[in-house]
Amino acid sequence: MTNRVREILSWYTHENPGVRANLMRIMNHGRLGGTGRFVILPVDQGFEHGPLRSFAPNPPSYDPDYHFQLALEAGTNAYAAPLGFIQSGADRYAGELPLILKLNNSDTLYGGDDPCPAVTGSVRDALALGCAAIGFTIYPGSALRNEMYEEVRELTEEAKACGLPVVIWSYPRGSGLSKDGETAVDIICYAAQIACQLGANIVKVKPPTEYIEQEPTKKVIEKERIPIATLSDRVRLVVKSAFNGRRILIFSGGPAKTIDELFTECRGIRDGGGFGSIIGRNSFQRPKDEAVRMLTAVMDIYAGKEAKAPAAEKVGSAR
Amino acid sequence: MTNRVREILSWYTHENPGVRANLMRIMNHGRLGGTGRFVILPVDQGFEHGPLRSFAPNPPSYDPDYHFQLALEAGTNAYAAPLGFIQSGADRYAGELPLILKLNNSDTLYGGDDPCPAVTGSVRDALALGCAAIGFTIYPGSALRNEMYEEVRELTEEAKACGLPVVIWSYPRGSGLSKDGETAVDIICYAAQIACQLGANIVKVKPPTEYIEQEPTKKVIEKERIPIATLSDRVRLVVKSAFNGRRILIFSGGPAKTIDELFTECRGIRDGGGFGSIIGRNSFQRPKDEAVRMLTAVMDIYAGKEAKAPAAEKVGSAR
Amino acid sequence: MTNRVREILSWYTHENPGVRANLMRIMNHGRLGGTGRFVILPVDQGFEHGPLRSFAPNPPSYDPDYHFQLALEAGTNAYAAPLGFIQSGADRYAGELPLILKLNNSDTLYGGDDPCPAVTGSVRDALALGCAAIGFTIYPGSALRNEMYEEVRELTEEAKACGLPVVIWSYPRGSGLSKDGETAVDIICYAAQIACQLGANIVKVKPPTEYIEQEPTKKVIEKERIPIATLSDRVRLVVKSAFNGRRILIFSGGPAKTIDELFTECRGIRDGGGFGSIIGRNSFQRPKDEAVRMLTAVMDIYAGKEAKAPAAEKVGSAR
Amino acid sequence: MTNRVREILSWYTHENPGVRANLMRIMNHGRLGGTGRFVILPVDQGFEHGPLRSFAPNPPSYDPDYHFQLALEAGTNAYAAPLGFIQSGADRYAGELPLILKLNNSDTLYGGDDPCPAVTGSVRDALALGCAAIGFTIYPGSALRNEMYEEVRELTEEAKACGLPVVIWSYPRGSGLSKDGETAVDIICYAAQIACQLGANIVKVKPPTEYIEQEPTKKVIEKERIPIATLSDRVRLVVKSAFNGRRILIFSGGPAKTIDELFTECRGIRDGGGFGSIIGRNSFQRPKDEAVRMLTAVMDIYAGKEAKAPAAEKVGSAR
Amino acid sequence: MTNRVREILSWYTHENPGVRANLMRIMNHGRLGGTGRFVILPVDQGFEHGPLRSFAPNPPSYDPDYHFQLALEAGTNAYAAPLGFIQSGADRYAGELPLILKLNNSDTLYGGDDPCPAVTGSVRDALALGCAAIGFTIYPGSALRNEMYEEVRELTEEAKACGLPVVIWSYPRGSGLSKDGETAVDIICYAAQIACQLGANIVKVKPPTEYIEQEPTKKVIEKERIPIATLSDRVRLVVKSAFNGRRILIFSGGPAKTIDELFTECRGIRDGGGFGSIIGRNSFQRPKDEAVRMLTAVMDIYAGKEAKAPAAEKVGSAR
Repeated sequence: MTNRVREILSWYTHENPGVRANLMRIMNHGRLGGTGRFVILPVDQGFEHGPLRSFAPNPPSYDPDYHFQLALEAGTNAYAAPLGFIQSGADRYAGELPLILKLNNSDTLYGGDDPCPAVTGSVRDALALGCAAIGFTIYPGSALRNEMYEEVRELTEEAKACGLPVVIWSYPRGSGLSKDGETAVDIICYAAQIACQLGANIVKVKPPTEYIEQEPTKKVIEKERIPIATLSDRVRLVVKSAFNGRRILIFSGGPAKTIDELFTECRGIRDGGGFGSIIGRNSFQRPKDEAVRMLTAVMDIYAGKEAKAPAAEKVGSAR
Repeated sequence: MTNRVREILSWYTHENPGVRANLMRIMNHGRLGGTGRFVILPVDQGFEHGPLRSFAPNPPSYDPDYHFQLALEAGTNAYAAPLGFIQSGADRYAGELPLILKLNNSDTLYGGDDPCPAVTGSVRDALALGCAAIGFTIYPGSALRNEMYEEVRELTEEAKACGLPVVIWSYPRGSGLSKDGETAVDIICYAAQIACQLGANIVKVKPPTEYIEQEPTKKVIEKERIPIATLSDRVRLVVKSAFNGRRILIFSGGPAKTIDELFTECRGIRDGGGFGSIIGRNSFQRPKDEAVRMLTAVMDIYAGKEAKAPAAEKVGSAR
Repeated sequence: MTNRVREILSWYTHENPGVRANLMRIMNHGRLGGTGRFVILPVDQGFEHGPLRSFAPNPPSYDPDYHFQLALEAGTNAYAAPLGFIQSGADRYAGELPLILKLNNSDTLYGGDDPCPAVTGSVRDALALGCAAIGFTIYPGSALRNEMYEEVRELTEEAKACGLPVVIWSYPRGSGLSKDGETAVDIICYAAQIACQLGANIVKVKPPTEYIEQEPTKKVIEKERIPIATLSDRVRLVVKSAFNGRRILIFSGGPAKTIDELFTECRGIRDGGGFGSIIGRNSFQRPKDEAVRMLTAVMDIYAGKEAKAPAAEKVGSAR
Repeated sequence: MTNRVREILSWYTHENPGVRANLMRIMNHGRLGGTGRFVILPVDQGFEHGPLRSFAPNPPSYDPDYHFQLALEAGTNAYAAPLGFIQSGADRYAGELPLILKLNNSDTLYGGDDPCPAVTGSVRDALALGCAAIGFTIYPGSALRNEMYEEVRELTEEAKACGLPVVIWSYPRGSGLSKDGETAVDIICYAAQIACQLGANIVKVKPPTEYIEQEPTKKVIEKERIPIATLSDRVRLVVKSAFNGRRILIFSGGPAKTIDELFTECRGIRDGGGFGSIIGRNSFQRPKDEAVRMLTAVMDIYAGKEAKAPAAEKVGSAR
Repeated sequence: MTNRVREILSWYTHENPGVRANLMRIMNHGRLGGTGRFVILPVDQGFEHGPLRSFAPNPPSYDPDYHFQLALEAGTNAYAAPLGFIQSGADRYAGELPLILKLNNSDTLYGGDDPCPAVTGSVRDALALGCAAIGFTIYPGSALRNEMYEEVRELTEEAKACGLPVVIWSYPRGSGLSKDGETAVDIICYAAQIACQLGANIVKVKPPTEYIEQEPTKKVIEKERIPIATLSDRVRLVVKSAFNGRRILIFSGGPAKTIDELFTECRGIRDGGGFGSIIGRNSFQRPKDEAVRMLTAVMDIYAGKEAKAPAAEKVGSAR
């Protein structure tokens, strides 16, 4: 075990050995094993956006097996997905790859201003499927936020009693917020804090923009002259908001973008002290070879092997 | 054990020895130990107002450890916070400092006229984290008040059976009240009474203003010529409303203010028979040295060592 | 045991000995012990109307102990109050005075057209506090009535299994009724019947007025020439509605009034066959001596010792 | 409430108000009400010794009603019996007389060296029957003692949560002891201590003889020159063994004897600081008038009204 | 918090913060607070040996209060006793002194070759009484050992989930062992190991003699030339057997002896690396002043302040 892994585990001494052991497994797995940095492959888009939008750009990805293999070949720390996808490969991969069972999911067939995902799996499922953690999405800003907070509280108590760490996807959304507010720097900071206060072991948020949603917070940022101009500045603020860096905080890649944009974003996250990325569409919507090269490059960025990282053109055609 | 502590405990003979022992621990801890007066450090603002507004004015306060240390160094009776903050230090501090786990919390990302916090922790959490009490917020005046009253009733039954006392934050708020009504003297008295009737061992309210919200109460106040001109007058009335002074009643400090204003407020609370203050933003939004000096001075005011209390200017620059 | 008590108990042979024993204790306690008549002291106004409106007219009544002592000194059959008030004296008084724990309560900080009290105590609480019965309020006429009916049904099942009788406060109120309808004679009769049908052992209603709310009922009253002109006439009708007099039916005193008005009302209730009164504000908002004299006089009216009852002027200055 | 009752209750501050209220009811009931002394009528002999041996000497005592009436007429503090006897009168007497439901009983149809009673009732029964306490017999010295200790522990937890005090009959018996040892002074002291350690509120033992069963204890008694010559000496030692007099300790009357013997025994118990007697066969095996006179005399002995007590000859013919 | 306390806590990182907080409270309490050494007052002899043998040598010790006061005055780390004794003072002392509720107990009224204590308390009791830990006795060597091992396993799971550490009294006894074997060095080592393997946080054994019970172990000791001549040698071996010193291991004082013998024994335990003593009869069977002086001297021995320790003659007359 490296000193960095030891240091990170020292923030989780309130958890039982089972939770800490699974955190350790995730941190020691894959290309970034031992660095305390994370790249995770999440594939919940089949549920969240529908299969055609998600998998048609790269048809092999219709196959659940594809994603386990992608995660293994690229050497990500873990693979996260809803019940059905995890079920389809757990018996072959759970011993080789840390799996994260996402316990709630939303589809986009019903809109509504105040989203609330359905609970689609259980802690029992996660144990029976050999998972290393559970995942859960909350939508701060939704009129239904309390329902999600209370669900995750109960599932967290149960999961941790069974030695499973908890990953919270904290995505501000709902009638309490403007559209821009969903990624506003103050709101992302707030979302990170809420997830930590709810007892998350790993928190996932979106990269924050320079926009500020709440007037009183704007005044504080201005008064205290807090720099928010660059992505690194903003990531630094989110890291502080996640218990001053004492919780593992990772960032989603968001919608598919060019490889250069992605690399730049990851460098920003890294320089601001972020722990890594969770990259879905940007990986599985490319041909597998290309995705593996790209994920390798991202991991090298996080590992501080930037110089040796293949330039975007070497990865292949950017989409 | 002092006579005053013994006297206060004599009001709680309906509670089991475990509840009384924890009340005793809180009363015997810190600089005010044995006086029957209280200063408690609460830090739920990361959840309630967001991390930037709360912690940016004093960046070391982003770190959860900071608050445990502040409470210990200043010698407050206890430290109250939501699950995540308590988790982050419980294994090192729970044996040295009475901790209060706040079991419900609201964020300000979704507004709405009728607030209702989410339940974000459990009695099991409080026990496993070594806490000395649980805390819970109710919003009398909200359309959702009954939900909160019934939640706190159930949690109270469970907590007390396990020897944990119950602290209720009773904050009138919601569509049943005007904005001024939230701190109106009649409404604060009412809020204190409701918390006591629900079985609270310690009640926390805001300092009342001279405003009167309800017409029938206004008539009674006028007819009976009840003095409400000074803060002490009004505190006296709230103390009476808390079972004629037979429940521990403490007051929140509210938004950051000058040190002189705070001291004046504390003297008013003391002179009206209030048991003490729960001071969050006014303490952790200052540099720690300054906060410790200020809290010390406040405790000296409550302990009746006013003369020796450092004048505001000695504490340092008020924010 | 008197014949009258035996007769009343003969209506409750469907209840277990524990329920009947507690009914017996209530009937055998105090100045009216053995007469089958009741005067009960209820003090839930601190919760229902707020402490200032309730207790400021007689400041010693802020103290929870005051009410236990008032009930003991006056010799009422029982004392009814919410959780907090009962807790504050149960360990000293529960062995000397039958206590009734009111298990639900409303405050008046949030209005709304369709009231519904919060459940603020449990049957376990009532047992642990040594109570002789539980109390519960229903609001027939409220859109939320079914919630209350179903809550009281469940609590009744649990309470009676533990030997605790059930007192239902049946107060028509809500968007289904006009303001006058709340005390209309047909509605009060209806409210009494509903409480009996829900399994109440003791029913409490307000004294009915001559007003008739529902047209079809009005036609029947007119057609059958049912007399409703005097309070006694109307009480007689309510008594019939409470299973033809086979359930204990008592009447609330309502807002503070002159002593003469109260005595006249009690005579009307007595002459119509009502079982007694539950007198809150009219007793605890007077100085204790005066209240004891007044309650004594009321009890003498019910006991048929009218001639010896002190005239109003002897009781002292009416408020 | 007398000062003595208050003093006794001060030893039970670890119990909830319900338990204390029922203790208070028992202490305030009957001829000895308020004195802190006890005479209780127990009738479990129908189960323990069979009906003919028990009731044939006074045939009206076959009728369960007889015993309720005897207890009421004599003014004992309470009446204790197994399920069937309590059921037969609870609905008429539970409101007038504190009842103690004995939750376990042995018959003498099966012998065996190591007795263990059957659990024949439940806490639910006691509540539904309106009882003021539960009773339980343990046989220290039996090979099956642990079964009894663990049963009473569970029943005690349940009973006290429901506000019911616990009376333990602690009768040394079984293959671990000699026949003389069953009433040996050291063993009776031991039996009292065990009942107290198990959480009994009231302990019942047999009057101790001068015999000493255990060799090491004999040495201590001799070395410390502890007087055990008179019954008062020995009772004093048993009282000390019951938490230095801080638990209510009463003595059984044992097999029928002459009235003079009984009075002498009661004086000895009283002078040694015992709290009273539980007198079964000596009362219900006499004609009722005689029994009432005799119980009255015993109560007068305990109340310190010895001079006024009728001499044995006045009570009537001793059996 | 001292470095030694921190070091000891580092062996218990598998426990939740509540368990560690209570261990910390015990380690930080009293005269040895912060040293990582322990002296605990246990008083279960009233149950285990009977009240006369236990308390007659020092009659004030009949009173349960006496022991709380002795523990407080002497400044022991904790006070351990069965349910009844803890109940009798918990509401006054639990806030001032760490209490350990012993959840099983044996009496000596029934002999038998294979002892097994009765479970006489519950984790709920410990919580409601404000205790800092539970205690449990096992008898390795008894035919009934598995019953005890399985009981303590279940209670341990429940207690730790509620934040309560577990103290195991591990006393080899029963038909599997010779009388000398009960304190044989190999058996005591074995008993310590079993308690640790069962999850104990604190283990209590008797001081080992030079005798070796089991032949195969004797051969190993001889072959490996393991020194067992002095008490320190043997204690060192027991400490190694308790997970190489990584579990808190304390030694019982056994039957009353001279003060010099006791001091010599404590020095032996200290020099062998034992963590301290649990001293019952040797303390409460002396006059309180003398006991306090003796316990002070013992604590000074453990604290390494030997020079300043009063010689035996200063303590007073040894019994």
